[in-house]
Amino acid sequence: MTERVFNFAAGPSMLPEEVLQRAGSEIMNYQGTGMSVMEMSHRSPMFQKIFDHTKQQFIELMHVPDTHEVLFMQGGGSTQFSCVPLNFISASGKADYAVTGNFSGIAAKEAKKYGSIHLSYDGTQEGFTRIPSQKELQLDPEASYFHYCANNTIYGTEWQYVPDTGNVPLVCDMSSDITSRTVDISRYALIYAGAQKNMAPAGVTVVIIRKDMAGHPLPITPLMMNYETMIKKDSMYNTPPCWQIYMLGLTMDWLAEQGGVEGMEKKKHAKAQLLYDALENSTLFRLHADRDSRSDMNVTFRTGSDELDQKFVAEAAAQGLVSLKGHRLTGGMRASIYNAMPMEGAEKLREFILQFDKENR
Amino acid sequence: MTERVFNFAAGPSMLPEEVLQRAGSEIMNYQGTGMSVMEMSHRSPMFQKIFDHTKQQFIELMHVPDTHEVLFMQGGGSTQFSCVPLNFISASGKADYAVTGNFSGIAAKEAKKYGSIHLSYDGTQEGFTRIPSQKELQLDPEASYFHYCANNTIYGTEWQYVPDTGNVPLVCDMSSDITSRTVDISRYALIYAGAQKNMAPAGVTVVIIRKDMAGHPLPITPLMMNYETMIKKDSMYNTPPCWQIYMLGLTMDWLAEQGGVEGMEKKKHAKAQLLYDALENSTLFRLHADRDSRSDMNVTFRTGSDELDQKFVAEAAAQGLVSLKGHRLTGGMRASIYNAMPMEGAEKLREFILQFDKENR
Repeated sequence: MTERVFNFAAGPSMLPEEVLQRAGSEIMNYQGTGMSVMEMSHRSPMFQKIFDHTKQQFIELMHVPDTHEVLFMQGGGSTQFSCVPLNFISASGKADYAVTGNFSGIAAKEAKKYGSIHLSYDGTQEGFTRIPSQKELQLDPEASYFHYCANNTIYGTEWQYVPDTGNVPLVCDMSSDITSRTVDISRYALIYAGAQKNMAPAGVTVVIIRKDMAGHPLPITPLMMNYETMIKKDSMYNTPPCWQIYMLGLTMDWLAEQGGVEGMEKKKHAKAQLLYDALENSTLFRLHADRDSRSDMNVTFRTGSDELDQKFVAEAAAQGLVSLKGHRLTGGMRASIYNAMPMEGAEKLREFILQFDKENR
Repeated sequence: MTERVFNFAAGPSMLPEEVLQRAGSEIMNYQGTGMSVMEMSHRSPMFQKIFDHTKQQFIELMHVPDTHEVLFMQGGGSTQFSCVPLNFISASGKADYAVTGNFSGIAAKEAKKYGSIHLSYDGTQEGFTRIPSQKELQLDPEASYFHYCANNTIYGTEWQYVPDTGNVPLVCDMSSDITSRTVDISRYALIYAGAQKNMAPAGVTVVIIRKDMAGHPLPITPLMMNYETMIKKDSMYNTPPCWQIYMLGLTMDWLAEQGGVEGMEKKKHAKAQLLYDALENSTLFRLHADRDSRSDMNVTFRTGSDELDQKFVAEAAAQGLVSLKGHRLTGGMRASIYNAMPMEGAEKLREFILQFDKENR
């Protein structure tokens, strides 16, 4: 059996080794219940305990206030692209979107099915190399909500501030940086995040909703996309993705041991800086994102030569640094360094970058 | 550590022990890749291989013809309750539903958001004790489709024939008996099934769609609910529930070793008959479902005394026969005996029924 590798995939991505070990150790028989978590009725007291623990840990670690509810849904961010307008756009029929990458663009396009969508910012022409400043945002005070994506996985950019939208409710896709940084939840009407980057295996989407935002869905809203129903049923209108909720709980336990979100915030910037420094000081590499907009989660770079990029990806993989190929929209390389990527992985990649630069300049 | 129990839960429910063992053995490092299946990019060749294997095994075991496509979706049967009308009702604006239980009732109610729904049969008044005959079905030849639920988990009834709807496309919720019996797929326009009863852990829904049925969604159809999009993207428009797809593949491998769906069909009736015989010959118990409508998947019964029912459930659990409590809508007991329930489990339950009957009559 080969050693475990350092996996720089953009998601699904690395999980903490301790979490996998724990899951493996009780996969046949969870804590003397005589069954796997995968076999438990979601209505059983033993699963309810797992569910409650996961939710409570998440609430505590993310400091979710009582004004907000935490939901576990299915279908990933792309399902939330529809849920958001279906539940919120009835306020004025209009909504604002900032398009800073591929996924926020899809979110805006999807919302057009249900109302009048205005782009407060559109970075398409610039190739999504940066995040707009507050001043650049064209905000409609009558918008039902303002939607943005906190971290753009494909382009490697990340919002370094929370947009001020006045009285317009703030909606944020935090799929790729949730739990990596502290967030003042009270500023948000809704936060959603597919779990498969920073939290758990693919298949569960965490939603944090300000309770007073629910209850005004369009009449055509599908049953399972209605936030009010999910709140009333505590995410269990039907069978939830039990295994992912369990795994999320294990990851939250691990996060607590790492000093919580605050502990992670301290580490994640240092990890990213290791790579940014090496890349900036190289002769071979250039970064995709502008300095002020750089993501601590996804480091995007290239040599300028497709051939050399391929060589980089292949040689890195041979050294156990895998999944470094960039997204097809950007090409080049992408190193995703979510919470579960150990400092050692970032250090090894840094060494490889320096070595590759020396050998190929 | 306690022994593993016989788990009669209605879903999520038992998985084959060999499947859990295999999953546990490679949870840290899948076949020398250096990572867990839970950590793999869904766009990686290694995950694609898992995906293709699962899909191909399902197609072969279920004898899915080339006219049909197999999809892996999220959100369970309740999400399909919306998908079906959103994708199909544009044909005439009307659809027929047979209501034979709780879930088919919810499906019909959900469809009313999108068109004119006619109940071809409604068993509510009778307490859902039986499946209607072909003659009883009031069919509208202009319906866009006819929807029914093959097996009613809560009430323990199961359709023993495929309804003849003439030219009206047949849509079936097979969540609780898929892969337990042979199905002539060519007769169906759409089959869907939450995997958590007979196939895999909760979090993936298998859809079998006749390809020519796709492509006519209502304009308000959410992105992730559009069958055409899912067909075009081979179920990977966004990140699918990778772990469940992997587990489904392992279960399909196991099913192949059991002689496939044909092998399971031979066993499942014998398993159910063991219980039905014991219950019919008892003095204490009565069955919920009419004889001709009885399900081979969910055996529903009661003593007539709530106190005695509770005693049954508790004493059975003490002997390692767990989750026998009936659904709140029916009360009493329910023994769910899906594919992964070994004959030994049914035999043990039969012995317990006989013993309890003797001791409490």
